[in-house]
Amino acid sequence: MNYLIVKSIIGRVLYFEAAFMLLPCFTALIYQEYSGWSFVFTALLCVLVGAVLTRKKTKNTVFYVKEGFVSVALSWIVLSFMGGLPFLFSGVISNPIDALFETVSGFTTTGASILKDVEVLPHCMLMWRSFTHWIGGMGVLVFLLTFMEMHGGSHMNLMKAESPGPSVSKLRPTVRSTAKILYIIYIVLTTVEILLLLAGGMPLFDSLTTSFGTAGTGGFGIKNDSIGGYSPYIQIVVTVFMILFGVNFNAYFLIWCRKFTQAFRMEEVRCYFGIIFASIAVITLNIAHLYSGVGEALRHAAFQVGSIITTTGYATTDFNLWPQASRTILVLLMFIGACAGSTGGGIKVSRFIILIKTIKKELHTLLHPRSVRKLKLDGHTLEHEVVRSTNVFLIAYVLVFALSILLISFDGLDMVTNFTGVSAALNNIGPGLELVGPTQNFSIFSNGAKLVLTFDMLAGRLELFPMLLLFVRETWKKY
Amino acid sequence: MNYLIVKSIIGRVLYFEAAFMLLPCFTALIYQEYSGWSFVFTALLCVLVGAVLTRKKTKNTVFYVKEGFVSVALSWIVLSFMGGLPFLFSGVISNPIDALFETVSGFTTTGASILKDVEVLPHCMLMWRSFTHWIGGMGVLVFLLTFMEMHGGSHMNLMKAESPGPSVSKLRPTVRSTAKILYIIYIVLTTVEILLLLAGGMPLFDSLTTSFGTAGTGGFGIKNDSIGGYSPYIQIVVTVFMILFGVNFNAYFLIWCRKFTQAFRMEEVRCYFGIIFASIAVITLNIAHLYSGVGEALRHAAFQVGSIITTTGYATTDFNLWPQASRTILVLLMFIGACAGSTGGGIKVSRFIILIKTIKKELHTLLHPRSVRKLKLDGHTLEHEVVRSTNVFLIAYVLVFALSILLISFDGLDMVTNFTGVSAALNNIGPGLELVGPTQNFSIFSNGAKLVLTFDMLAGRLELFPMLLLFVRETWKKY
Repeated sequence: MNYLIVKSIIGRVLYFEAAFMLLPCFTALIYQEYSGWSFVFTALLCVLVGAVLTRKKTKNTVFYVKEGFVSVALSWIVLSFMGGLPFLFSGVISNPIDALFETVSGFTTTGASILKDVEVLPHCMLMWRSFTHWIGGMGVLVFLLTFMEMHGGSHMNLMKAESPGPSVSKLRPTVRSTAKILYIIYIVLTTVEILLLLAGGMPLFDSLTTSFGTAGTGGFGIKNDSIGGYSPYIQIVVTVFMILFGVNFNAYFLIWCRKFTQAFRMEEVRCYFGIIFASIAVITLNIAHLYSGVGEALRHAAFQVGSIITTTGYATTDFNLWPQASRTILVLLMFIGACAGSTGGGIKVSRFIILIKTIKKELHTLLHPRSVRKLKLDGHTLEHEVVRSTNVFLIAYVLVFALSILLISFDGLDMVTNFTGVSAALNNIGPGLELVGPTQNFSIFSNGAKLVLTFDMLAGRLELFPMLLLFVRETWKKY
Repeated sequence: MNYLIVKSIIGRVLYFEAAFMLLPCFTALIYQEYSGWSFVFTALLCVLVGAVLTRKKTKNTVFYVKEGFVSVALSWIVLSFMGGLPFLFSGVISNPIDALFETVSGFTTTGASILKDVEVLPHCMLMWRSFTHWIGGMGVLVFLLTFMEMHGGSHMNLMKAESPGPSVSKLRPTVRSTAKILYIIYIVLTTVEILLLLAGGMPLFDSLTTSFGTAGTGGFGIKNDSIGGYSPYIQIVVTVFMILFGVNFNAYFLIWCRKFTQAFRMEEVRCYFGIIFASIAVITLNIAHLYSGVGEALRHAAFQVGSIITTTGYATTDFNLWPQASRTILVLLMFIGACAGSTGGGIKVSRFIILIKTIKKELHTLLHPRSVRKLKLDGHTLEHEVVRSTNVFLIAYVLVFALSILLISFDGLDMVTNFTGVSAALNNIGPGLELVGPTQNFSIFSNGAKLVLTFDMLAGRLELFPMLLLFVRETWKKY
C-alpha cells in the first residue's frame, strides 16, 4: 500500500469538504442561525487535518487498483466522519453513532434518517443534509478528478472504484474530460429541476434541498411527510426528475452529441423504462380503491415507483399500508435499482440484463453443448471480465445481505423491518417497510445495528469491494 | 429432442411407480383399509400408461444432456401426477391441484402439506406419503440406472440432471455401480434408524414412516405435532439421523473403503458440521429462557437446526414463536441446505464454499492484478466449469425466488409468509414461518400460488435447469 498517496488524496478530499461547508454557512447567515458556527469550526478542522495529511510529498507514484479502492473507501469514511461533526457540535444529534449514520446516509444518497422530527432542525442543517446527497450522488473523487493532475492510470482506478455499474465506459479519451462532462450534465439537470420547482410556487429553500435530494437520488426531506404536502404539480416534477436521474448518463451524453438513435436504443435504458411503466401499471390497478380516483392512484404509484427504483426514497403516501402485491413489487424494485452510470443505487438494471442473459446462454449451452455463443449488450460483445465481475458482485451482494440480516436480527425487531431495513441501506434507498416504513425512521435500531447498516450504506454506494478490501490484512501491507 | 427415448424412460419410471405402490397396498391389507383399492387402480393405470409409452422401440440412441434433463423433469412431473391419484380416488383430497401439490411435496422431499389434519388419514395414505420421500430422496432415475442398460454417456446425463450438488463425482468407474453403492448406503442407514426407533419403543408403523421421512430429508409426519409428541430418546435419534442424511454420501463411501482421514478431511462435511454446531450453540442461548432448562433448549435447538439445514422439516416445537435472532438463523439455514450428494435440498454447503472462495479470490485479484490463483476444494483444483455453473446456479436461484415471491404476493398474505413459503418450497424444507409455520400448513394459498410453489419444489429438487429447460421452445424441436 502506498500510504503517502492515499493520505494525500484523503487530505485533498477534506479541502473540498471544507469548501462544500460554505453552503450551509451561507444558509446560516441568511437565516441568522447560531448553529452555523458548527460548520465554520468543522470546515477549519477539515482544512487543518487536510493540511496535515498532504504535508508530506511523495515521489512514489505507484497507484494500482488497490490504492484506488482503498482511497475511495477511506475518503468516504473520513468525509462522513467529518461531515457528521456539525450535528454533534450544534447538539442537533447527541449520539456520535447517530451522527455518523445520518451523514453516511447523506453522502451515500440513502436518505435513511435517525431523526424523528426534521422540521425542528435549523435551515443550515437541513441544507447540509440535502447537499451531502448532491455531493455523494456523482461522487467526491470523480469531482476531485476534474481538478487533479495524476499519474498514468490513477484516474481510471479511482473512477472504477467510485462509479456505479458493472463497467466504466469512457465517454472521452481521457478520464478527466469524461468526469467533467458528467458533472456538467449533473449541474444542468439539477438547475432545470430547481427552476421548474420554483415555477410551481415552491419556496427557494425547499426547491434547492428537494432538487439536491432528487439529483443525488438521496431522499432526505425537509418535511416530516417528505413530499406528501406539496402540490400535485410539484410531485409530478419530482417524479419525472427522479426517473431522469436514474437514467444512465451515457444516454444524455449521446443526446448531447446528437446521436439520438444510439441513445434511445440503449438496452439498459429501454429496460429501465419498461420496468417502470409495468410496475406503475400494476400498482395503479392494485391500489386504485385506496384513493379517490385512478388519477390520484396513478400519481402516487408513479411517484413511489420512481422513488424506489431510483433508490431516492422520497414518499408522497405511506406505501407501507398498500396491499401486499404492491409492497412486494416495491421491495423487488429496491433490489433492481437504477441504471449503471446514474446517481442511483441498487444492483443496477444493466447487471440484471447481464444476469438474465447469462441464464439464457446457459440454457442455450445445455441445448447445444458444442456451440460457443457470446453475450452481447447494445450490439457489442460483453467482455468475459464484465460478466465475471457481475457474477462475483451478485455473490458478494447476497453474502453481505445475509450476514447483515443475521447481525441486526439480535435487536429482536420483526423480520420485514430487518429485511427491508438492510435492503434500504444496502441499496441506498432510505425507507423500507413496517418499522422503517416511509413514516418511520431508523432510530429504533441499537448502536450495533446502526453500525452494520452504516457499513451497508457505504458498501452499497461503493459497490461492495472497496469496503470489503478494508477487511483483508494483506491490503495494509507496506511496499 | 429424441422423443421416443424420453417416452421410454418415462414409461419405465411408471413401471417402478406401480411397483412402489405395493407398499401402501400391503399396508392397506394389514389395516383392512378400503382406500387401499385406490392404489391398486393407480398401479394398474401406471402399468397401462407405461406399456403405451414403451411400446415403440427406437434405434436412435441419441441421448445428450438435453434428453437427460427433459427426461428427468418430465419423469418427476408424471410420477407426481400419477402418485397423487390415490388421494383423489379415495377422496382424501378433493382438489386435483392439492393432490398434485401434496405428491410433489412428497417426491421432492419437501414435506409441505395442504392437509390440516393428517391423523384422520388411513394408514396406507400415510405410508404412501412417507414412502414418496424415501423414493424421491435418492432419486427415481438414479434408481432406474441401477437396473437399466443404456447407451454411452446416457447414464451420466441422467445422473447429472437428478443428483444434487455442483458436480457429480463418480465413486466408481461406471455410473451404474456408483448408483448401486449409493443405494446400498441409503438402505443400510435407513434400516439402522428403523431399528433404533423400534428399540426406543416406537410402533413399527411410526418407525417406518418416520425413517422414510428422515432418510429422504422429507418431513411429512403422521402426527399433527410432527415429532413433538415422541420421547426425548426418539427425538434425539431422529436429530442424529437427519444430520447424517445431510452428509455428502461420498464421505460414507470413503469410510466404507476405510479411507478415514480422507473422509474426515472433506471440506464440505467439516463446514456442514461447523455450521450446525455454531447454530445450535447460538440458538440454545437465545431460547434457553423459553424452556425448563438448558438441556431441553439444547434438544429443541439441535432438532430444529438439524431439521432445517438438512431441509427435512420435522419439528418438535413451534419455532415460529422463537426470538427473532433464532428465527433468522433458521431462515438462513434454509438457504444453505445440506451437503451436495446427500438427500437434502437447499443451495448446498459446497456451493457456499465455492461462492465464498470466489469472493476471496476476487479480493486477492484486486490486490495482485497479475497473479493467477485457482480455486481449490479438498486440495484439488476446481474446474472452471464447476465454478461457472455454481455462479449461474446462484443467478437462476435468485431470479426464480424473486419471481415466485412476486407471483404469490397477489394472494395478499403477509411478506414473511410469502418469503419463507417460497423458501420452504424452493429449498424443499416444508414449514416456513408465520402462516406456513410448523403448526400451520399450505392450504391458505390460492390454486395459482400452489402451482407456483409446486413448480418451485420441483425446480429446487432438480436444481433449476431441468425445469427451466421445459420453458424454452427450442427444447421441443424434433431432430
